[in-house]
Amino acid sequence: MIRETIESAITRPTKKYLRYLGIKNLFGTDRTKQILKVNPTILPHREEAREIRTYVYDYNPQSIEEHEFRSVEPCFQFRQSNRISWINIDGIRKSDVELICTHFEIHPLLIEDILSIQQRPKMDEVENVLFCLLNMLYFNEVKGTVEQEQISIVLGKDFVISFQEDASRDVFNPLREKLKLSNSKIRQRSADYLCYSMLDMIVDNYFTVMEKLGERIEDLEEQVIASTNNRALARISSLRKELIVLKRNIAPVRDLLNGIIRSESDLLDDRTTKYFKDVYDHIMQANDLCENYRDVMVNMQDLYINNVNLRMNEVMKVMAIVTCLLAPATVIGGIFGMNFDRIPYLHHKNGFYIAVFMMLIIPVYMLWVFRKRGWF
Amino acid sequence: MIRETIESAITRPTKKYLRYLGIKNLFGTDRTKQILKVNPTILPHREEAREIRTYVYDYNPQSIEEHEFRSVEPCFQFRQSNRISWINIDGIRKSDVELICTHFEIHPLLIEDILSIQQRPKMDEVENVLFCLLNMLYFNEVKGTVEQEQISIVLGKDFVISFQEDASRDVFNPLREKLKLSNSKIRQRSADYLCYSMLDMIVDNYFTVMEKLGERIEDLEEQVIASTNNRALARISSLRKELIVLKRNIAPVRDLLNGIIRSESDLLDDRTTKYFKDVYDHIMQANDLCENYRDVMVNMQDLYINNVNLRMNEVMKVMAIVTCLLAPATVIGGIFGMNFDRIPYLHHKNGFYIAVFMMLIIPVYMLWVFRKRGWF
Amino acid sequence: MIRETIESAITRPTKKYLRYLGIKNLFGTDRTKQILKVNPTILPHREEAREIRTYVYDYNPQSIEEHEFRSVEPCFQFRQSNRISWINIDGIRKSDVELICTHFEIHPLLIEDILSIQQRPKMDEVENVLFCLLNMLYFNEVKGTVEQEQISIVLGKDFVISFQEDASRDVFNPLREKLKLSNSKIRQRSADYLCYSMLDMIVDNYFTVMEKLGERIEDLEEQVIASTNNRALARISSLRKELIVLKRNIAPVRDLLNGIIRSESDLLDDRTTKYFKDVYDHIMQANDLCENYRDVMVNMQDLYINNVNLRMNEVMKVMAIVTCLLAPATVIGGIFGMNFDRIPYLHHKNGFYIAVFMMLIIPVYMLWVFRKRGWF
Amino acid sequence: MIRETIESAITRPTKKYLRYLGIKNLFGTDRTKQILKVNPTILPHREEAREIRTYVYDYNPQSIEEHEFRSVEPCFQFRQSNRISWINIDGIRKSDVELICTHFEIHPLLIEDILSIQQRPKMDEVENVLFCLLNMLYFNEVKGTVEQEQISIVLGKDFVISFQEDASRDVFNPLREKLKLSNSKIRQRSADYLCYSMLDMIVDNYFTVMEKLGERIEDLEEQVIASTNNRALARISSLRKELIVLKRNIAPVRDLLNGIIRSESDLLDDRTTKYFKDVYDHIMQANDLCENYRDVMVNMQDLYINNVNLRMNEVMKVMAIVTCLLAPATVIGGIFGMNFDRIPYLHHKNGFYIAVFMMLIIPVYMLWVFRKRGWF
Amino acid sequence: MIRETIESAITRPTKKYLRYLGIKNLFGTDRTKQILKVNPTILPHREEAREIRTYVYDYNPQSIEEHEFRSVEPCFQFRQSNRISWINIDGIRKSDVELICTHFEIHPLLIEDILSIQQRPKMDEVENVLFCLLNMLYFNEVKGTVEQEQISIVLGKDFVISFQEDASRDVFNPLREKLKLSNSKIRQRSADYLCYSMLDMIVDNYFTVMEKLGERIEDLEEQVIASTNNRALARISSLRKELIVLKRNIAPVRDLLNGIIRSESDLLDDRTTKYFKDVYDHIMQANDLCENYRDVMVNMQDLYINNVNLRMNEVMKVMAIVTCLLAPATVIGGIFGMNFDRIPYLHHKNGFYIAVFMMLIIPVYMLWVFRKRGWF
Repeated sequence: MIRETIESAITRPTKKYLRYLGIKNLFGTDRTKQILKVNPTILPHREEAREIRTYVYDYNPQSIEEHEFRSVEPCFQFRQSNRISWINIDGIRKSDVELICTHFEIHPLLIEDILSIQQRPKMDEVENVLFCLLNMLYFNEVKGTVEQEQISIVLGKDFVISFQEDASRDVFNPLREKLKLSNSKIRQRSADYLCYSMLDMIVDNYFTVMEKLGERIEDLEEQVIASTNNRALARISSLRKELIVLKRNIAPVRDLLNGIIRSESDLLDDRTTKYFKDVYDHIMQANDLCENYRDVMVNMQDLYINNVNLRMNEVMKVMAIVTCLLAPATVIGGIFGMNFDRIPYLHHKNGFYIAVFMMLIIPVYMLWVFRKRGWF
Repeated sequence: MIRETIESAITRPTKKYLRYLGIKNLFGTDRTKQILKVNPTILPHREEAREIRTYVYDYNPQSIEEHEFRSVEPCFQFRQSNRISWINIDGIRKSDVELICTHFEIHPLLIEDILSIQQRPKMDEVENVLFCLLNMLYFNEVKGTVEQEQISIVLGKDFVISFQEDASRDVFNPLREKLKLSNSKIRQRSADYLCYSMLDMIVDNYFTVMEKLGERIEDLEEQVIASTNNRALARISSLRKELIVLKRNIAPVRDLLNGIIRSESDLLDDRTTKYFKDVYDHIMQANDLCENYRDVMVNMQDLYINNVNLRMNEVMKVMAIVTCLLAPATVIGGIFGMNFDRIPYLHHKNGFYIAVFMMLIIPVYMLWVFRKRGWF
Repeated sequence: MIRETIESAITRPTKKYLRYLGIKNLFGTDRTKQILKVNPTILPHREEAREIRTYVYDYNPQSIEEHEFRSVEPCFQFRQSNRISWINIDGIRKSDVELICTHFEIHPLLIEDILSIQQRPKMDEVENVLFCLLNMLYFNEVKGTVEQEQISIVLGKDFVISFQEDASRDVFNPLREKLKLSNSKIRQRSADYLCYSMLDMIVDNYFTVMEKLGERIEDLEEQVIASTNNRALARISSLRKELIVLKRNIAPVRDLLNGIIRSESDLLDDRTTKYFKDVYDHIMQANDLCENYRDVMVNMQDLYINNVNLRMNEVMKVMAIVTCLLAPATVIGGIFGMNFDRIPYLHHKNGFYIAVFMMLIIPVYMLWVFRKRGWF
Repeated sequence: MIRETIESAITRPTKKYLRYLGIKNLFGTDRTKQILKVNPTILPHREEAREIRTYVYDYNPQSIEEHEFRSVEPCFQFRQSNRISWINIDGIRKSDVELICTHFEIHPLLIEDILSIQQRPKMDEVENVLFCLLNMLYFNEVKGTVEQEQISIVLGKDFVISFQEDASRDVFNPLREKLKLSNSKIRQRSADYLCYSMLDMIVDNYFTVMEKLGERIEDLEEQVIASTNNRALARISSLRKELIVLKRNIAPVRDLLNGIIRSESDLLDDRTTKYFKDVYDHIMQANDLCENYRDVMVNMQDLYINNVNLRMNEVMKVMAIVTCLLAPATVIGGIFGMNFDRIPYLHHKNGFYIAVFMMLIIPVYMLWVFRKRGWF
Repeated sequence: MIRETIESAITRPTKKYLRYLGIKNLFGTDRTKQILKVNPTILPHREEAREIRTYVYDYNPQSIEEHEFRSVEPCFQFRQSNRISWINIDGIRKSDVELICTHFEIHPLLIEDILSIQQRPKMDEVENVLFCLLNMLYFNEVKGTVEQEQISIVLGKDFVISFQEDASRDVFNPLREKLKLSNSKIRQRSADYLCYSMLDMIVDNYFTVMEKLGERIEDLEEQVIASTNNRALARISSLRKELIVLKRNIAPVRDLLNGIIRSESDLLDDRTTKYFKDVYDHIMQANDLCENYRDVMVNMQDLYINNVNLRMNEVMKVMAIVTCLLAPATVIGGIFGMNFDRIPYLHHKNGFYIAVFMMLIIPVYMLWVFRKRGWF
């Protein structure tokens, strides 16, 4: 029976421990793999999209036309339209990207950028075109990870071409709604305003992702305070990884927007600059918030580790005190258990009771001393 | 009875411990939620004010008129007054903000900013208007938190419109007093001086908040030195959160003021620039102070953790030494408690006393050795 | 008697411990209060000086006049003197500062600065005047703290007015001596050289303070190496606070001097610029040294904490080993102390000696194994 | 037999421990030596190459000539060719470098740079030549180290001379293939495009190295999570060293490329600038990635150390609890083992069972209390 | 005998420990004193050199004259020589410095700098002279410290005057050799090239010092890996101090050289600028290397501390496990040592063997459980 008790004493924390080892599901190294994945730039290993969809919005303040195609060739005609054309291509296939870019006279380096993967967000002015490459972020609620989808935006004279990796996620839906309203600002303005609207939408989406990450941080903090859950450590570690992804995406977008604001391209109307400044303010705020997240995380990790230590100390202290308090009783038991012929009080009527009394009074006295010293 | 003693030995630290777990009241995760709250900018979730109050001060060096309204429409007339008009709106309601801004020809982007929540302090020059958005800070003595109220200031030609979230707190009272004095500087100067006075008042208020936070830090330090209170850790953690809020508000105001000083807007009189420089000096000082607070906090946390460790070490060392000192006595007891037929001294007259003497002399000798080694 | 031994074992470290708690005298929270004290700028709580003293030095290369007054009015006349006038005012009283500043046409904002307390060092060019505000530092040997006295210097056309808080400390004495020498450079040059001399003296004094702080750091290091004194931690913490004060005073003076060097004010002669550059070099060096102090402190704290840990580990290891070595003896004693009828060797002539021999040989063997493993 | 058990208890962790000490093979100090090796610049201790190989590609859009020599003299003729000449020299020998550089009128300082070792990547414009010095990186799969080969590129009017240290590694092979294609861009453009192509190839190669380093980091993370392998610490330490090498190579290349982009040299065609900008984007990305690697490593080390501590705590806690639980049984055994004449229950029929029952029930009760307190 | 064993168990680590306390010889606080020593600039406490030596090299491309004097006066004549004169003064004596500087019309501020001690490296252009002050570094192999000797270089029209503190160390010997060669570059060029050569020599010497420091770091790393030597900590701490000295000397030299490169002084020939740029590259590299050293040191300290902890944990774990394994045997011994009348198996033939068997089987079972849990 004693064995069982020990067993259970051992098994209990072990189960917890195994649970701890079982964090693998929660926090795999695949995520690290994704984060550390690099772009050798020469050979983009991107999987070719199986099919692509092309949405064209050809509009001016008066009217709008909407088209959907399954290839890029039909879009060629919109270059000559006197209206503003937004060509949105869902799914990236090398041949199609090259086809359309060649037709719109986009520089080969930009084609390479569009086809690349895991690129750093950047902005480029090449010849008569303004090019933005950045990532749309999504928060995967199931895995708790920040996922990114690369978006390339090419702003030319009276046209905007956007490339999205994933056909399934409909990012720019609200924009489409606005486009259909003839009195919306987006219809009144030129192509640069459309470009701004897209960037604005992407940056605003960062906040949505951060909000969800923020909720995770709060949950975690509640766990850290309420209990000394071993998994908290793995969770903090896991969230720190996501913060790396976030930071990596947000910081260069600042430069991107700064580049647009300071650009002297003819494609950008002076009236639109203040809108880009507004997005710039937003990305600055996202950046600040990122820093705050980091501070809160560091704060939390400190609290957690100190909490664990305090708790461990508490336990060890009690164990040490209990062991220490029982030691004198063992000694007294040993003294009167010796087989000497003459041991005082051995034959005394109350000898046993005196011994037991001492076994009790010494620990009580020690306790009194310990407490007086403020040791527990 | 021995059980009771153990019980109390266990219960005591436990109660303390439970108190520690009970820090939730002191330091909830809601605060983290507030700090991490983000601004998705598209849909401001600000609760609409139930009622708004509008205070108008229409003045020139010679005279001043004071009005109070419950809506924004009556303020429209002051646009044509040849005097300087300060329109202060307490409580933010989307419809009203849009009404008044449209009338005063304020750019839609600024309207969006005014209506937004949790904005980063910023300054903007749009068309013929200079716009400042920053937060008034209050220290909530009960919760020990830094609260913020967003304030937007629009400086135009001969008018200043200010928007406050909270009607209950009367921030600019001393300013009103000064306005009523006909010989006050504020009456002699144009609208930019009024704008300066408001910024100055807000920044000065930061110091009041910091002073109160400073008092908390001092209290905490006293606690950390006097006792090893477990709650100190939670308190330090909690104060660090407030410092994040402080930092987040102060740092961008520096940029804001720098922007005003370097602005070449016609709205700003050259003579007023040196006043803005003065506020800039103040915000720099607040920023430095923030850094000092952080240093003091880090210093304190180091001291606290080392203090706890030293104390724990002290306790564990004494326990280990006591256990160690009693071990030889147990061995001696065991030796003479064996049931061998022939054990020397067992039948000796003073055998028992010799054994007990050894039980005492060995720990005393060990103590002497330990102390000589400087181990306690 | 055993009780006494335990008692003394407990009391010893306790006394040390109490001494540790007694650090309050050494390191009060008042210091933190002083460091964190803020300047709400609107209401300077400075105590009005009970009396002021005014020293005027009116000189040109040929002659010098020296005056001492108990009020500011008699200084007014020196504005019209064609010579250079240095008006040094010891003790700050609101009414007097306003009187003299008004007479010398100094901008009201500067008056506010002069009257303020706990200001960040700064430099300002307002109208026809160059204004410097910085702190003279003193090292209080008794308290071991860095004390500051605010000094304002106003450089005008042919006059310098300096304001000092404390009448008792005679800061600029060596300067006075130099002034009295007719062939000294200071007499040959204009007012800006006098201003330089004052700044140079203040900055040089920083080194004196740092030298004394440096001595404290060395003393502390010697203590840290020689013994594991618990107070060392408090002392390090206390010195780190003083470093905060130092850093806070030195860093902005760099900007101040940079401002003077880059100023294009007519008050500054081109020939004097290289002297200001020299002071700038000095303050840069003070700044570097501050960094070095910080590095040495961090280095020392690491050493101290690791030293304490190594020592603690040493003690705990010996205790654990002693306890562990005696455990087999207890078991053997227990084995032969059992009351079974048939226990081998119990009736053997040398049974007891065999048992005791085993009690000795097992720990010796364990010791041999432990040492071979390099565990102590 | 008990001795054997103890032995095995000791030997087990020891073996592991010895394995830990055996990390020397894995992680020698020679690597540190290589990393810390400095360049005294006066006496380059580079081993002279035993033989050199010279490859010359003399091309224009129409045709290309390919030559291979074993000395540098035959290359001299290509200076006068009206075509673009790429002279690639594998193996560095002082006399040959001086010969060719003198013939091509390259400044002596550049000769010194080419001959130096362990140089910091840098770019220089001297007279009519643009000089780049940087390192090609390789990942040594066996040793797990980042190896570097110094490459110097001299861009002159219609010629590019490149110097490589190691003849065995054929770095620029893909470039040679492209050169042979008459319609490749590289053939159409001037020498600066060739220079760009080489830099691009080198920078792209950094990503290959980083990818391999990234794989190591992932492997390591998997180990850290799966088990508390002691070698993990040495491996992390070892990888951190390689990151230092990486960082040291990548950061200055940024400056190098920035220098080229901002250069106003006639050697650089405006059309090529955007290609250099593209390489600049890549190196920025490599730099960011380096930071991410560092963050991931710090994250991992924190996780590892906390993991080890949690595990150790777990073990120590169980040991302390087991020891503590058995202590009351020892005391009870001692009580009824005393030799007093009158001990209650000693002669009772069930006395023994009562005692044993208490020996069991007390630990069970303690367990219940401990678990209730949440101590395991 | 058991006492002796304990004694030796205690004495062993103690001796080691005392050795640890004996680090004072290795690492005195005097070094800290030297590092923290400040320059109060007013009163240079430099010891006056007992004697000075003056070496003059008066040369032009055609011829060179070499002189050695014991005073400065004979150098005066070389001011009028139409050749380039290098006047090198070993040993600094206030009167002599003033004499020669006055004759060569060097500004009094520069005289003050030359006489000052512990100066921060700096560069100054005063009137018609370019002034450099920096430190030559030496590595003291015996003490393991970085020693500095202040060197001042004054570059004027056709002359260079250099001041060295220490007559015994012949720093510029290789330069002298080069000067004597009529076809050396140094003889062909003007005085600025001589100045460059001196700076180059000083900076190259930094690498020699760093190489030696690097060797120490490698030695230390080997020690840290091979054994857990307590002195390693003190050594790391000591090396970190030397790194502070190194950093303090190298960082400002970067500014110094930058100042020279950007200077528009007539004293500097355009052709020499690229040589100064070369030294600048070297100092940048030294700076980078300094950072690498720091990283390696931090890496090593982390490894060391974790190594010590792992080792300590190993020992404590084994001790705890041994103690824990023996506890059940003590309990069983206690059970059958009780004096109850009726104890089962007490009179059984094999009772004793059953008890001893249980004493063995329980720890073996525990061992099996522990190992299964992976606890050692």
